[in-house]
Amino acid sequence: MALWGGRFSGKTRDEVARFTESISFDRRLYKYDIAGSIAHVTMLAKQGIIPEHSAESIRTELGKILERIEKGDFKYDISLEDIHMHIESALIAVLGDEGARVHSGRSRNDQVAVDVRLYLRDAVEEIIGGIREFQRALVRKAAENPEQIMPGFTHLQHAQAVLFAHHLLAYVEMFDRDAGRLADCRRRFNVSPLGSGAIAGSTLPLDREYTAQLLGFDGVTRNSMDAVADRDFMIELLSALAIFGIHTSRLSEDLILWCGQEFDFIELDDAFCTGSSLMPQKKNPDVCELTRGKTARFTGALTALLTMCKGLPLTYNRDLQEDKVPLFDAIDTAMQILAVYPPMIDTMKLKGASMEKAASDPALMATDLAEALVGLGVPFRTAHHRVGSLVKYCREKGKALDELSLEEMRLTIPEATPEFPAMFDPKASIAKRKVTGGTGFEPVASQLAFWKKQLDLA
Amino acid sequence: MALWGGRFSGKTRDEVARFTESISFDRRLYKYDIAGSIAHVTMLAKQGIIPEHSAESIRTELGKILERIEKGDFKYDISLEDIHMHIESALIAVLGDEGARVHSGRSRNDQVAVDVRLYLRDAVEEIIGGIREFQRALVRKAAENPEQIMPGFTHLQHAQAVLFAHHLLAYVEMFDRDAGRLADCRRRFNVSPLGSGAIAGSTLPLDREYTAQLLGFDGVTRNSMDAVADRDFMIELLSALAIFGIHTSRLSEDLILWCGQEFDFIELDDAFCTGSSLMPQKKNPDVCELTRGKTARFTGALTALLTMCKGLPLTYNRDLQEDKVPLFDAIDTAMQILAVYPPMIDTMKLKGASMEKAASDPALMATDLAEALVGLGVPFRTAHHRVGSLVKYCREKGKALDELSLEEMRLTIPEATPEFPAMFDPKASIAKRKVTGGTGFEPVASQLAFWKKQLDLA
Amino acid sequence: MALWGGRFSGKTRDEVARFTESISFDRRLYKYDIAGSIAHVTMLAKQGIIPEHSAESIRTELGKILERIEKGDFKYDISLEDIHMHIESALIAVLGDEGARVHSGRSRNDQVAVDVRLYLRDAVEEIIGGIREFQRALVRKAAENPEQIMPGFTHLQHAQAVLFAHHLLAYVEMFDRDAGRLADCRRRFNVSPLGSGAIAGSTLPLDREYTAQLLGFDGVTRNSMDAVADRDFMIELLSALAIFGIHTSRLSEDLILWCGQEFDFIELDDAFCTGSSLMPQKKNPDVCELTRGKTARFTGALTALLTMCKGLPLTYNRDLQEDKVPLFDAIDTAMQILAVYPPMIDTMKLKGASMEKAASDPALMATDLAEALVGLGVPFRTAHHRVGSLVKYCREKGKALDELSLEEMRLTIPEATPEFPAMFDPKASIAKRKVTGGTGFEPVASQLAFWKKQLDLA
Amino acid sequence: MALWGGRFSGKTRDEVARFTESISFDRRLYKYDIAGSIAHVTMLAKQGIIPEHSAESIRTELGKILERIEKGDFKYDISLEDIHMHIESALIAVLGDEGARVHSGRSRNDQVAVDVRLYLRDAVEEIIGGIREFQRALVRKAAENPEQIMPGFTHLQHAQAVLFAHHLLAYVEMFDRDAGRLADCRRRFNVSPLGSGAIAGSTLPLDREYTAQLLGFDGVTRNSMDAVADRDFMIELLSALAIFGIHTSRLSEDLILWCGQEFDFIELDDAFCTGSSLMPQKKNPDVCELTRGKTARFTGALTALLTMCKGLPLTYNRDLQEDKVPLFDAIDTAMQILAVYPPMIDTMKLKGASMEKAASDPALMATDLAEALVGLGVPFRTAHHRVGSLVKYCREKGKALDELSLEEMRLTIPEATPEFPAMFDPKASIAKRKVTGGTGFEPVASQLAFWKKQLDLA
Repeated sequence: MALWGGRFSGKTRDEVARFTESISFDRRLYKYDIAGSIAHVTMLAKQGIIPEHSAESIRTELGKILERIEKGDFKYDISLEDIHMHIESALIAVLGDEGARVHSGRSRNDQVAVDVRLYLRDAVEEIIGGIREFQRALVRKAAENPEQIMPGFTHLQHAQAVLFAHHLLAYVEMFDRDAGRLADCRRRFNVSPLGSGAIAGSTLPLDREYTAQLLGFDGVTRNSMDAVADRDFMIELLSALAIFGIHTSRLSEDLILWCGQEFDFIELDDAFCTGSSLMPQKKNPDVCELTRGKTARFTGALTALLTMCKGLPLTYNRDLQEDKVPLFDAIDTAMQILAVYPPMIDTMKLKGASMEKAASDPALMATDLAEALVGLGVPFRTAHHRVGSLVKYCREKGKALDELSLEEMRLTIPEATPEFPAMFDPKASIAKRKVTGGTGFEPVASQLAFWKKQLDLA
Repeated sequence: MALWGGRFSGKTRDEVARFTESISFDRRLYKYDIAGSIAHVTMLAKQGIIPEHSAESIRTELGKILERIEKGDFKYDISLEDIHMHIESALIAVLGDEGARVHSGRSRNDQVAVDVRLYLRDAVEEIIGGIREFQRALVRKAAENPEQIMPGFTHLQHAQAVLFAHHLLAYVEMFDRDAGRLADCRRRFNVSPLGSGAIAGSTLPLDREYTAQLLGFDGVTRNSMDAVADRDFMIELLSALAIFGIHTSRLSEDLILWCGQEFDFIELDDAFCTGSSLMPQKKNPDVCELTRGKTARFTGALTALLTMCKGLPLTYNRDLQEDKVPLFDAIDTAMQILAVYPPMIDTMKLKGASMEKAASDPALMATDLAEALVGLGVPFRTAHHRVGSLVKYCREKGKALDELSLEEMRLTIPEATPEFPAMFDPKASIAKRKVTGGTGFEPVASQLAFWKKQLDLA
Repeated sequence: MALWGGRFSGKTRDEVARFTESISFDRRLYKYDIAGSIAHVTMLAKQGIIPEHSAESIRTELGKILERIEKGDFKYDISLEDIHMHIESALIAVLGDEGARVHSGRSRNDQVAVDVRLYLRDAVEEIIGGIREFQRALVRKAAENPEQIMPGFTHLQHAQAVLFAHHLLAYVEMFDRDAGRLADCRRRFNVSPLGSGAIAGSTLPLDREYTAQLLGFDGVTRNSMDAVADRDFMIELLSALAIFGIHTSRLSEDLILWCGQEFDFIELDDAFCTGSSLMPQKKNPDVCELTRGKTARFTGALTALLTMCKGLPLTYNRDLQEDKVPLFDAIDTAMQILAVYPPMIDTMKLKGASMEKAASDPALMATDLAEALVGLGVPFRTAHHRVGSLVKYCREKGKALDELSLEEMRLTIPEATPEFPAMFDPKASIAKRKVTGGTGFEPVASQLAFWKKQLDLA
Repeated sequence: MALWGGRFSGKTRDEVARFTESISFDRRLYKYDIAGSIAHVTMLAKQGIIPEHSAESIRTELGKILERIEKGDFKYDISLEDIHMHIESALIAVLGDEGARVHSGRSRNDQVAVDVRLYLRDAVEEIIGGIREFQRALVRKAAENPEQIMPGFTHLQHAQAVLFAHHLLAYVEMFDRDAGRLADCRRRFNVSPLGSGAIAGSTLPLDREYTAQLLGFDGVTRNSMDAVADRDFMIELLSALAIFGIHTSRLSEDLILWCGQEFDFIELDDAFCTGSSLMPQKKNPDVCELTRGKTARFTGALTALLTMCKGLPLTYNRDLQEDKVPLFDAIDTAMQILAVYPPMIDTMKLKGASMEKAASDPALMATDLAEALVGLGVPFRTAHHRVGSLVKYCREKGKALDELSLEEMRLTIPEATPEFPAMFDPKASIAKRKVTGGTGFEPVASQLAFWKKQLDLA
């Protein structure tokens, strides 16, 4: 009979047991459940709620259960519903009455809230660590190619020449904010709900501050009803991961474009690609495509959690059990991406000549002409219009911008000086961009130095 | 080496194999993959593309592979990526060159499109069958209690007295539309993409109409690029399931309210409830809560698929592999709900006295008074205002509507006739509602008869 | 005072009136609200519930109100909440008691359900019409360029040579399914809820079949509680539009790629592009980008509606008022896309030489070699491996596939015949693809003919 | 002609202008656009890029434009696309060449990024202020009723007696975390992108730190490509609002339940409710229902933004223009909720007797019995089972828990002491819950004191 079955006449139906069980996915919390129980019984004994020898027996037996689980020597059974009931039952099976004391002053409602927070604390730290490695791979690749030029795109059209390093560093910035969001989230959820009971706290003299301290929490939750009812920290975490997913999807899109035959800017290592069952010549950027596709998992998981929580009355409702599948899926997905992407960046080869050829499109330097006119005192909007007319002239004549003589240029830009026809060198263009955060050699070198220091790269 | 590995120098990295594999979830397609291959080789032989004896060997060996898989005697290995490669490799391992002919004129792109459509055809039929059972359970429960009265709610406030049977039949209507959507979806996707190849069809003389016929499709897709690129039938299906999820979430909400202490309209059987680890008195409507929570899985899965497909260039992109996890999850979730809900409805007990007591709230009959005034020639808006004033009068006097004498009633309703003070009997109120689709005894009996016939209920 | 205000002592607070009003967005239903009221009073008079002269007066006055609204000569006021109350108030202001009869036997709950269904009937027809025009534009452009060759892509990598017409026709197929979904949805919702009242039908002798017929519905809803509570037809519609949005996002992605400097396959007309405030050379494919971005509106609207409906108890709840903003937004967005896209396709220019150059990549023909080997009796998997090795050989030697002599080719493909080195002509490759739905000249011509007929194109 | 039109031959088509315009929704940024331009020209003059007198003229004229806009004396025209072009055109119309200097070294890409951040800075502060007011209203209502008892619910079933004040304070906790998330988000986005140009920075000697300081930013963005491409701060903000939406939806659900006839715990003021067009007795909790429904807008807006950003290549793409509609809608929705909810809480009346009656359900004290047994040395799991058996016994005998004599109680609880039969007083039960964060009189008083101090309530 279920541990809670005293008041029941009928047994849970098999289909219902299958429908309501969570052991198939919450078993990953075992380590945290055991840590929580050890802290709990230590406190119970300190407060005189259970005898010290019972606490000691329970702690010892929990240690053995931990070992059994890690060795794969622990039996799971959906009739025991969840990881909490599995461990409590295993305790009681061995210890009898002493084990039956473990749940004093506790409910699964506060217990699962503790377990998940402990689990997420580790998971968030691991993800932040992975993000730092990802940043390091990007910075390394940027640092290996500090002066490589490429076209910069807006609207997927040639905009201005930029440094390849600058392009990669844009992602380093995004990932930095991702790490910041995760750290904020962790700080917010790292308080202990233990001792909140099912809803109302307890009539037993629990010391919540003590268990919080034993478990490394920064404090305790202030309201027992909130503590068992709320899942906002999970939504916040999924949202941070969804944003990370957006960033990785954009990087993936860039790489997919770059390794296609039309762009041909990079080559990914064979180890990160697969072929086609039909077409013998194919080598596909699967990791990038799947990462882009996995944005969907994050967004789906976030939507699911929001939908799940909407309109639930206080406090705990069983709907909340549905939190774990999307939560764990999103965390696993993030970790998988972080496992494959850094080595793919490290082994990615640049096709410098091809990038340079694309960057030599003189249209990329049209803005430089307009800004040079500003330097000569021409109002910007006029300057913009002059250069626009030059572009139109070239299109009508079938000429490239850098094929015009000064005279021809002066037909639409009367202020043009002899330097103008020579302004189409992308290197020179980049050299002029000295503004903070810009794509010039100097600001990019400074960004690289900043990140190397931040990320402890030699 | 991978079957597609001819052009590769490097091997797929282990993390990448883990990242890109789909065998852990697409193995459920094995039966359909084998059916597709049998049809394909039969056609290849008919067209003279491969020898008849090769087709024969392949068919026989595929039969054996099917048996091995169903016996659990088939080894999976992520380096073989997906179910297609597993089965082709197993064929070649036994048959050598003959097996190596199976993939002639085919790509995994059209192969997976066939497999999934065949799988969905079965899944959709099973779900429709389950929905019909669900409807039957609701109709049975309604038919057992054809004259049970309860308050009807709008805004969760007492609105008008209704029949309990009418309330349940509202859900029968919703589920009927759900079944209709699923059938429309099935009709739309039941065309064969086989023979579309990777993108362009084939240079081999394939007979697509023949394989379509062998596999029970209604026809063939008309454009090979569309056939391998599109996933809209999956989105349509997930959308139909998400709507079904909305309907079940609303029924669940109703039942959760009804079995709470405040409403106390029904009792669910113990077999469909669980207790609390802390609170000994608890008996919780878990199936309803989890079903309500699972709305989230449907919505999340649908959002995921939409996000995944957004902005992908033609044709196949590896992102599309991410279609299966949400698709399968939604289908499994629907089937689980359909497995537990009908028996829960069948075993649910009504608390008729409690419902009747709630239905005797005289405010539920306020509209009847207004409509009676309309019958006396009072313009409706005036009638509404008169009765509203009566309600206000009662609130101020601290009286119930049915405690007023005719004289007192005439203070705000001068037109009131001697019948008015007796209009607060909910049964009488219901008896008057004869309009098609209304909650009167007659129309509800007619709805019940309609559904019994539709659903082949004795 | 509000028309429903009889029982209220206090007035609605101003902020609350602003919070709860819907007139700012539901006013677009005016025409349908009036049509519904005309049918309703006609039935009321036929049934003897109101005098015929009242019905006559109301019909006449409703006609005048319609004119006033269309002339912009109608005053809106949030204290009148919604379009229903505005029109009823306007009636009563002119007709007094006769106008006060209009709402007999009706609730806003069934009224709004009628209005929206009538509105959607028109909207869906307009959208289907727009989709047909979109298909026509695509078919016209395909038919103008029936033999234009381009590379076909999978994974955004060169896959096989395809016809440009075939690529466009893939979208014609997708849009055809979109139209089918919309028509199914319309069929399902085209039943009349009028006469369902607030929840329970009516005690007045309404004739629901008659109003349904007057309003052009195919029948009546069968359950009054379902009729006022459910919004599944809106979700179904939004889902159909979301899928349409996916299709347009993919077409947009294709066009954005094609008009970039790297692909350079098409040029969009100036009328469909805008420039940059800073960069004088820019011409951006804004319509495509915004259309791709608008996928987000559809997905957001669909998610919103699903979230809104989740877990609501029967029957009507005020939450449902939130249905209209996402519904109308999605419909408007679809119509906007349909207004700009067809003329953009019509004016789009192909850069045939550029496409052809890209299509001359010999790797696109690698599969043809493998299939030719199959024709010579080589098992396909062996053939695939041979050609894969050839590709690897070429990469190592720095040669293109079409630069090899027969002898060199035979190093990896011993079975190669003298025809092999000449197999890299994309036109010849396409000519060989005769399979139904494939990209060959014949099947594409047949697809074009099919669509011209279907779409009544000369 | 458009200000960027130099290179264009054709004019933008009318439908396209309508499709691509943003002035209809981005006009709300006018104030921030002007502030950004004033800072920009001040810097341009300081750096010698434009003459000081031009800067002076521009600043003066921008002040006049601001006044015109605020007076409603400014003409909008979709052919001018957006608020930036409207203001620049208005400047040039008056100042000619001097006005034409304003956009030197700037792009709309960095300009809009500045405008939105400035706007959001204000919006976030206003929302945080509103949240604090909301918390104050909840704390006031809790403090007015510090000892009011009610049943606490899990699974919407009676769980344990709790204080009404404790229930309200749970929401105060949730809103506190909401405010924290908003503040973190604001801190993260409060850096200036101005000077990032379209993508690459500028060749002009801009001083970005200076404009950042003039505009009150905490610093400058470090990478120009990231600065114009990323929208993650909007997603983060929408996510914080979506979580706030979840919290308000749950509070709304509680209130809707409480003001229904079955619970009858509170009465909302007439000013926050509306009636029915048909049913004269109705008074509906519309504000709560709409707030619950508006969860959908937040979730929809968040999903929309995530979908929009997914898979976009760097840097700016026109899709990003679609960010504003969901962003503004979510902010407006939050502000509307914050405008109506606090006064509704302030005017809400408790029905204390009704709450107390519900709280006297003896089942609510079942856990107290089990914990009393723990105090007597009975292992908790045994204690739980004993009390469960007592509940079952009562159900079978048709008795309430508090109707049993000590002898009868001892049939299932042999350890029961004479105090046991008297343990069903909910006040006494609450008095025993002294644990931090629990629902006891002491911890709740301490929570109230904490929040009064935090929120500066007298």
